[in-house]
Amino acid sequence: MLFGPQEARFGKRPAPQIEDPYEVIVSISYVGVCGSDHKVSRMQVHLWMHGQRDPDGLPFVMGHEASGIVHTIGDLVTNVKPGDRVAIEPGFPCRRCNLCKSGKYNICPSVQFAAHPPTHGTLVRLFKIPGDFVYRIPDHVSLKEAVLVEPLSVAVHANRIGQTAPGKKILVLGSGTIGLLVAAVAKAFGVDAIYVADINPKKLETSRSLLGRQTFTPSLSSTPEQNDETFKSKADLSRGVDIVLECTGVESSAQTGVHALAPGGIFVQVGMGKEVQALPILAVCEKEIVVKGTFRYASGDYELALGLLASGKVDVKPLISEIVPFEKASEAWELTRRGEGIKNLIEMVPE
Amino acid sequence: MLFGPQEARFGKRPAPQIEDPYEVIVSISYVGVCGSDHKVSRMQVHLWMHGQRDPDGLPFVMGHEASGIVHTIGDLVTNVKPGDRVAIEPGFPCRRCNLCKSGKYNICPSVQFAAHPPTHGTLVRLFKIPGDFVYRIPDHVSLKEAVLVEPLSVAVHANRIGQTAPGKKILVLGSGTIGLLVAAVAKAFGVDAIYVADINPKKLETSRSLLGRQTFTPSLSSTPEQNDETFKSKADLSRGVDIVLECTGVESSAQTGVHALAPGGIFVQVGMGKEVQALPILAVCEKEIVVKGTFRYASGDYELALGLLASGKVDVKPLISEIVPFEKASEAWELTRRGEGIKNLIEMVPE
Amino acid sequence: MLFGPQEARFGKRPAPQIEDPYEVIVSISYVGVCGSDHKVSRMQVHLWMHGQRDPDGLPFVMGHEASGIVHTIGDLVTNVKPGDRVAIEPGFPCRRCNLCKSGKYNICPSVQFAAHPPTHGTLVRLFKIPGDFVYRIPDHVSLKEAVLVEPLSVAVHANRIGQTAPGKKILVLGSGTIGLLVAAVAKAFGVDAIYVADINPKKLETSRSLLGRQTFTPSLSSTPEQNDETFKSKADLSRGVDIVLECTGVESSAQTGVHALAPGGIFVQVGMGKEVQALPILAVCEKEIVVKGTFRYASGDYELALGLLASGKVDVKPLISEIVPFEKASEAWELTRRGEGIKNLIEMVPE
Amino acid sequence: MLFGPQEARFGKRPAPQIEDPYEVIVSISYVGVCGSDHKVSRMQVHLWMHGQRDPDGLPFVMGHEASGIVHTIGDLVTNVKPGDRVAIEPGFPCRRCNLCKSGKYNICPSVQFAAHPPTHGTLVRLFKIPGDFVYRIPDHVSLKEAVLVEPLSVAVHANRIGQTAPGKKILVLGSGTIGLLVAAVAKAFGVDAIYVADINPKKLETSRSLLGRQTFTPSLSSTPEQNDETFKSKADLSRGVDIVLECTGVESSAQTGVHALAPGGIFVQVGMGKEVQALPILAVCEKEIVVKGTFRYASGDYELALGLLASGKVDVKPLISEIVPFEKASEAWELTRRGEGIKNLIEMVPE
Repeated sequence: MLFGPQEARFGKRPAPQIEDPYEVIVSISYVGVCGSDHKVSRMQVHLWMHGQRDPDGLPFVMGHEASGIVHTIGDLVTNVKPGDRVAIEPGFPCRRCNLCKSGKYNICPSVQFAAHPPTHGTLVRLFKIPGDFVYRIPDHVSLKEAVLVEPLSVAVHANRIGQTAPGKKILVLGSGTIGLLVAAVAKAFGVDAIYVADINPKKLETSRSLLGRQTFTPSLSSTPEQNDETFKSKADLSRGVDIVLECTGVESSAQTGVHALAPGGIFVQVGMGKEVQALPILAVCEKEIVVKGTFRYASGDYELALGLLASGKVDVKPLISEIVPFEKASEAWELTRRGEGIKNLIEMVPE
Repeated sequence: MLFGPQEARFGKRPAPQIEDPYEVIVSISYVGVCGSDHKVSRMQVHLWMHGQRDPDGLPFVMGHEASGIVHTIGDLVTNVKPGDRVAIEPGFPCRRCNLCKSGKYNICPSVQFAAHPPTHGTLVRLFKIPGDFVYRIPDHVSLKEAVLVEPLSVAVHANRIGQTAPGKKILVLGSGTIGLLVAAVAKAFGVDAIYVADINPKKLETSRSLLGRQTFTPSLSSTPEQNDETFKSKADLSRGVDIVLECTGVESSAQTGVHALAPGGIFVQVGMGKEVQALPILAVCEKEIVVKGTFRYASGDYELALGLLASGKVDVKPLISEIVPFEKASEAWELTRRGEGIKNLIEMVPE
Repeated sequence: MLFGPQEARFGKRPAPQIEDPYEVIVSISYVGVCGSDHKVSRMQVHLWMHGQRDPDGLPFVMGHEASGIVHTIGDLVTNVKPGDRVAIEPGFPCRRCNLCKSGKYNICPSVQFAAHPPTHGTLVRLFKIPGDFVYRIPDHVSLKEAVLVEPLSVAVHANRIGQTAPGKKILVLGSGTIGLLVAAVAKAFGVDAIYVADINPKKLETSRSLLGRQTFTPSLSSTPEQNDETFKSKADLSRGVDIVLECTGVESSAQTGVHALAPGGIFVQVGMGKEVQALPILAVCEKEIVVKGTFRYASGDYELALGLLASGKVDVKPLISEIVPFEKASEAWELTRRGEGIKNLIEMVPE
Repeated sequence: MLFGPQEARFGKRPAPQIEDPYEVIVSISYVGVCGSDHKVSRMQVHLWMHGQRDPDGLPFVMGHEASGIVHTIGDLVTNVKPGDRVAIEPGFPCRRCNLCKSGKYNICPSVQFAAHPPTHGTLVRLFKIPGDFVYRIPDHVSLKEAVLVEPLSVAVHANRIGQTAPGKKILVLGSGTIGLLVAAVAKAFGVDAIYVADINPKKLETSRSLLGRQTFTPSLSSTPEQNDETFKSKADLSRGVDIVLECTGVESSAQTGVHALAPGGIFVQVGMGKEVQALPILAVCEKEIVVKGTFRYASGDYELALGLLASGKVDVKPLISEIVPFEKASEAWELTRRGEGIKNLIEMVPE
């Protein structure tokens, strides 16, 4: 029984206590199930399916997308107070290494990230976290939507890494949760020329209805060069696009993306797939393309993601598919594993 | 007979005339043979060996590394005068496209680059060129050394693209002409921690004697991950380097480079090899690495390369191997094809 | 009689001829009168009032904001054809200096800018211009609106210089033509938190009705520090704004702006007033503020400005006040000199 | 009696204790007296002369330039161990605000900086500090030199802010301690064309002998424009310099600096003088100059400063003027107040 381990641990361990004056304890409301886009998520589904245990032999706690209500705060916390409804940024860096001190805390080698062993996840009743990693949400934003601030922050970070800006032409490869959010953020950043590609026509249809953007279906039986040519011809882009945001993690998709770039373009690898992938490196050189890895989110991304959501510039409501009570959490994971729904949520306490 | 085509054309075509008041005609002194590092050079050796002809059926003129003496200038040229000894930047962009106007003239799609069909090369007595692409050399710099300003500009550009700066740790992969120059420029840019790797111990020895830098010999029978581990352990670099300048164009070398980078590092692909290469893309994401293509040189690179040479910060004299008279030009190409010498020059007129 | 000189010259001089295959001759439709925001404009009003003459003693031609219809094109022009309706970018750089070649053609020391002596302006029937400085406008954009692409490009450039981006808090100082356009562009760039300040309540009212942004009226009898405090308190900004776009050129306004910035903020001087102005330089140091001059527009600004106008993201129609026939051009300048209207246009030929 | 308060406090207060596992206690060896370049220093001299007291009425402890020997470390400190000789970075940011998390900890509004009330300084026997703000020095670097890592970090930071790089032309205004170090760092960064200006011929002589750079003496009776003209003519710089590093804090010097810049240049205000200063703002606009404030040092600056010192690229020994025993500390401050010596040190314990 998959769910057992999680439940079991609540009985075994005492509730967390504030030990540091900057800490906050949040009573978790909703936890998102992340399963389709990310290596992280695939790892999570894997952990879940195999009943991962922590070094003490206790079951491992899942979940890194979460919202909740502030339960307790340390003496020096000023940004939230008990009762505040909050979104949770689930990775806590060391704050002391060169990367943290130079503004890149997302790649801090000592970061503790929820549901990344040995750090337990957010699928618990009370979750302890540094106060500067919780964000009060406005009244008109629901706790369900607030769960989506996490993947939306991934999309914000990817667009910032890609230097998305008005006047750029952008190709988003992949139209799953992350691809949709990445395209929605590009639109909110003032870009008009956004093209979305996916081999799945149903996903593309979602993209069209949500964003109204021009879409493109690469052919699995064509080479990346051929798909690029078809794309450029359909989009009437002789010169290519300025930015590619690759959200599938699929090798041939990335290759098409490199070919679709104009000289001087930027390629951002958002989706994660195989460890090693073939890239048209000669084209990277001759067009002096910049290929950028992107990893989670860093300074300011959560604030901006929440801002986009609160202002209505990005509407995440259509992405929320199923809401499953905690008692049936394993079903949410099962749905996600089967690729059903865009974003399935686990409800921890009645809102 | 390889040499014939070149000679033949001098008899067939009239000398160039100034048609535009900004043009300059240079009497060529030396032409470098570029054959080991670059796709460009390999293409050149290929063109040479196969007697490439232009659309008119005339033989194609080789050469893109050159120095000479100003012969004639247009009415509006002010930076040089007849008799000036000059280095030649051999690519002339359109100046009108978005890339030219945004400072990236090296990737102008309409650039005319010497010895890139259909543009003839510099291995001629008189070479016509826009005045702002010739650079007067100081008296103490020889016309032989001035030929090396071209590959030195490639090295300057690569270091600028890689954001080489004091305090960074740098790994240069490959110790051929470009690798040596790239490392020498990194040193001139104020970097102390430069590591040079090559599988050829003789080339590494050159690197050690010229630059006095720590070197490393990757093992062909090890994986990129293993070579990285050996490198980090020998160099006592637990965290990795900040910048990798890949000058071999070899896939496994590039892979080692990505693994050798610290989180947030920059990988610059300088050497060009296969069109498509496998890259550890997951590591690129998780360490948020930036992979940058680099192509030739752009604004300010030639001035800086000449400045480094003139100030003695980079000494190119040890790189000049053989000087072959024009009548024996085919021998220079043959030497280069066989990998003999670092930089072989063809002498056009007695200095 | 002010108008005489302009008319006179049409009789005296032959129509321009294509001399270079990249040139275009445009039949001018509308010319904007620019008089309130810029030193350039003040100079223009001055030139007009005093009947400036060129070195040959001929009257000087005014105008640098213009639209028209392509009349003739050189053999190598491909971006427009005769009959195309176009916006005109009125400054032509040398394309050969270091600044042009590094992407900063707007500050090319040899730039020829319309109506900047000795370069004549656009208030003529036929205006000759390099083909890459004319931009075809879509059918739904009128030639009247197209005149506004010039000041809108100033606003785009200023926002790019200021690194305007979603999530930033922005204070625009001044609500004249440029201030309004600067704020409108910031909005189109995805910024929500835009504050507009002006001492003229009527201008602020325009700002509110056009942009719906929060406004602020500095008090002339308060110090910059006091105005900053009032602003921060009214806007509920304890920390300050991230970017200030100063469009008045007034010393005390700039000082208020520096105080209003959060640490690490960017201050852009868009408006030009006195040659030398007092700045709170200690605050600049202690908050590590970056103060940026901005001058006209450079690569990509015109395309983006036209794009914003064409997509409706920036609506310039409400800014067009009076349309005066060419025969009464002096009235348009007189209106502008008296500060009447936002943007007055001179109509050259019936549309 | 000036010295009394400091001595007195040692008797009154218990030695510091490790309270946080990341803390270090350093036994101070040398403290520098900083008095000529900086507002900070002038404030310090002021505090010293007036016997500043803390909120408890206890005397205020001076000193922010210091070296020492590690006395005790917290359980989680790994970068140093007791007995290590260290340089001390004397400002400790909050690590939690947006500025800290985005890599700008130097402008953290909650930073605690040594000898900045209410934070006591380093002129004590035992100084407690977060472990990541102490830097082990190599054996061949003396504890006296290590004191200079602080002002050298200011110089490193200023050069980084100014984007000092090979090929740039740089004018350093002021040849006091900071000006000398700023010029020395620019040289170590690979710049050849460094010009140093000072109205004091003795200071310029020091600059010439230490750095061998071209110097310039502005005339106090000339306007900034005239001084700029004389400078450009003497330095044979028709176009101007690329970067100005203003280290005097004097208004007319800053004005000369702005005029001396080429279009697109960068002006860095390093020295701090009057709160409000007149700047040629029109020149800033027309040349699109970037004026940057600089404040102390941030991520990586201390490591790099120590590296430059350890490699011998910057030799600080000639800057050390007097070493005064702790018992005569007031004399060191008095010397500095009178402008005697470049850098005077107070010796706390025999090395």
